[in-house]
Amino acid sequence: MPHFLETSAPDFDARLTALLGMKREDSPEVDDTVAAIIADVRARGDAAVLELTAKFDRLELTPQTLAFSEAEIDAACAQVPEAERAALELAATRIRAYHERQRPEDAHWTDDTGASLGWRWSAVSAAGLYVPGGLASYPSSVLMNAIPAQVAGVERLVICAPMPDGVVNPLVLLAARLSGVDTIYRIGGAQAIAAMAYGTETIAPVDKITGPGNAFVAAAKRRVFGKVGIDMIAGPSEILVIGDGTGDAEWIALDLLSQAEHDESAQSILITTSQAEADAVCAAVDRQLEVLERRAIAGASWRDNGIVIVARDLAQAAALSDRFAPEHLELCVEDPEALLEDITHAGAVFLGHWTPEAIGDYIGGPNHVLPTARSARFSSGLNVLDFMKRTTLAHMTPAALAAIGPAAEILAQSESLQAHGLSVRARLDALNDKT
Amino acid sequence: MPHFLETSAPDFDARLTALLGMKREDSPEVDDTVAAIIADVRARGDAAVLELTAKFDRLELTPQTLAFSEAEIDAACAQVPEAERAALELAATRIRAYHERQRPEDAHWTDDTGASLGWRWSAVSAAGLYVPGGLASYPSSVLMNAIPAQVAGVERLVICAPMPDGVVNPLVLLAARLSGVDTIYRIGGAQAIAAMAYGTETIAPVDKITGPGNAFVAAAKRRVFGKVGIDMIAGPSEILVIGDGTGDAEWIALDLLSQAEHDESAQSILITTSQAEADAVCAAVDRQLEVLERRAIAGASWRDNGIVIVARDLAQAAALSDRFAPEHLELCVEDPEALLEDITHAGAVFLGHWTPEAIGDYIGGPNHVLPTARSARFSSGLNVLDFMKRTTLAHMTPAALAAIGPAAEILAQSESLQAHGLSVRARLDALNDKT
Repeated sequence: MPHFLETSAPDFDARLTALLGMKREDSPEVDDTVAAIIADVRARGDAAVLELTAKFDRLELTPQTLAFSEAEIDAACAQVPEAERAALELAATRIRAYHERQRPEDAHWTDDTGASLGWRWSAVSAAGLYVPGGLASYPSSVLMNAIPAQVAGVERLVICAPMPDGVVNPLVLLAARLSGVDTIYRIGGAQAIAAMAYGTETIAPVDKITGPGNAFVAAAKRRVFGKVGIDMIAGPSEILVIGDGTGDAEWIALDLLSQAEHDESAQSILITTSQAEADAVCAAVDRQLEVLERRAIAGASWRDNGIVIVARDLAQAAALSDRFAPEHLELCVEDPEALLEDITHAGAVFLGHWTPEAIGDYIGGPNHVLPTARSARFSSGLNVLDFMKRTTLAHMTPAALAAIGPAAEILAQSESLQAHGLSVRARLDALNDKT
Repeated sequence: MPHFLETSAPDFDARLTALLGMKREDSPEVDDTVAAIIADVRARGDAAVLELTAKFDRLELTPQTLAFSEAEIDAACAQVPEAERAALELAATRIRAYHERQRPEDAHWTDDTGASLGWRWSAVSAAGLYVPGGLASYPSSVLMNAIPAQVAGVERLVICAPMPDGVVNPLVLLAARLSGVDTIYRIGGAQAIAAMAYGTETIAPVDKITGPGNAFVAAAKRRVFGKVGIDMIAGPSEILVIGDGTGDAEWIALDLLSQAEHDESAQSILITTSQAEADAVCAAVDRQLEVLERRAIAGASWRDNGIVIVARDLAQAAALSDRFAPEHLELCVEDPEALLEDITHAGAVFLGHWTPEAIGDYIGGPNHVLPTARSARFSSGLNVLDFMKRTTLAHMTPAALAAIGPAAEILAQSESLQAHGLSVRARLDALNDKT
């Protein structure tokens, strides 16, 4: 049974606050282990990476076999059945079309003093994508991480993907090829993050690391942040569905379960203005849970983390949703565009009855790497700008400096930064000498 | 004497690589201390913040005096001399005008399947700006942090600024007022970061924390990252000047010193194609160092971290500059726009002889909170997008789902995520039933 909340109940606020603060994930204290792994990779390079891969993934590699060869990738791609290849290609095409619209524009203008101002965007030179492990590694995540980097114009794109016991998912290699990845290393864990951040004899360091991972990967990303850029510290996934009684209870139940089946710590939330819909969806979830392949996982997620709230009206539902700031938000209502106006915090919004969240996971076009655990309050899903940076530009003319230089000098003096002031004053004096 | 490098010397690459890897800052191991402070603030709220402020800043506060009152701010602002007020107002106006051009645009379109796609930008609800301490606190940094947040549309903007021994810089309070800050707390250190991230009885939590700080502040920001957004982990400042022999050696020397005077660990680098210019600038630096108020600091920075490189030509100079990926880059050359084409990695570029870096620190318009320690390879200076997030949107029609849903179903099956596939299949079946 999920958590049921009645908004009119006297303890509603207290219960909601408790649920919002609930920690869904066991975060084992891995920080010391990770620090040691990073230090080891920095000190011993390839040798450390190879030893750790043998130990954790039971995979014996050499510097020569750290990366897949082109022939190996060719062979794997050839194994992919035609239907899956076509689906992956359609997904890549749609994801690329969406992200191409995110390319930012440079700007240049002249202000009223005659100064030229502006900025210029450029791509990071090299990016590393982490793809979590083994057979459960997701080709869709490869597309979602690599395509924005490719669209941004990243020159060198590498993947680290652990292959426990050497098991390879051919679809992952095909997805990498479809999205312009240059090199795929069969390594994972904190050692892969360290290798990408600091480099080894074989692995050239990158400038930015993205992609989800387990607690070791997350702790390693936090530690190397600053040495390289990172995207975010990903937590377990969540979905919030807002209903108004006009939806199909089976469809909503499947949407909730498509989040719950990811992980026992995933969270599925239904906020509806209809008590009848709440009841019908819960009944449908229970029915589906009897037959779902991943029912153990999905059932545990729904029981421990699922939440059902019957709201007074859609305005209240939207306000409650903003408190959750959900990663995925479905507006399964009659007029989703109107409801969207009341929403401020969400990673991705799926509007209307015909937009199941799974469409966004694979093929809609928007990215599926999204801010979890209420971080949609302050961060965005992965996008082209994550692989670019903005350089600001300023070009003063003598007249522009004469106009604004004296104010800079005054502020420098007020901050007791004499050389700052003198660097402006020397130029102003030269101007005065000329006139 | 700074480090002199000859690009034609046989050991040039080795020396350059060593200098690039040089750690300029002592990073004391403060992580355990910071973890304890954060835990204390989470557990005891105001009481912990007040005790730590009494201990570290020798300042006795109460929950009532944690923040400045409006009357206190009024009184402080009234003390600011007219010339400084006018300079600060001009700076605020110019910084606002620059950043208003950074407001991003929403996007909506319909693709060839009839699906509506797009995204929407929104501001974070609350931001906290950290302003380092005491009399040396910089009013310009208040403007540079607060104005982008204000332009983004942040609803609640707070400052934490330690006031050791209760000493207040009136210009800081005036800068806060000019840039729409709601509340100024007289607290600092890791306790201020913890209070803004987790909240206390008196201090409401924020969603994003920006601003520079000492090792304790940096470690605290790294720890709360994920709970809130942060801007970056700031390191010591640096400037790189590229010259071609057409500049004034005195001006370049002052520009180099305006970085060196910040901090002994600051770094000033000259790369010039002219040996005569290298010599003249070094002589001018030595002359200025005899009279500069902050000569002890600036001299130590120049001696320990200063670098002078004579390059073969401007193309080589640009390539070397990219390896440093400097925070501030001055192009003191005859044709700076042409040279800019060869530059990829820099936080802010100042073009031509009449654009001293100090203009950018105060009044040019671009932000002075910039990526240090080679992080311009992957990150941007503070900007309006740091206070906004993008929500992606997708709205499928039945026809759009019919067109792309089958591919999503295939990919869901390939990832063994059955409910994902069923959530699409249930809708496709309903469509087929209708037709």
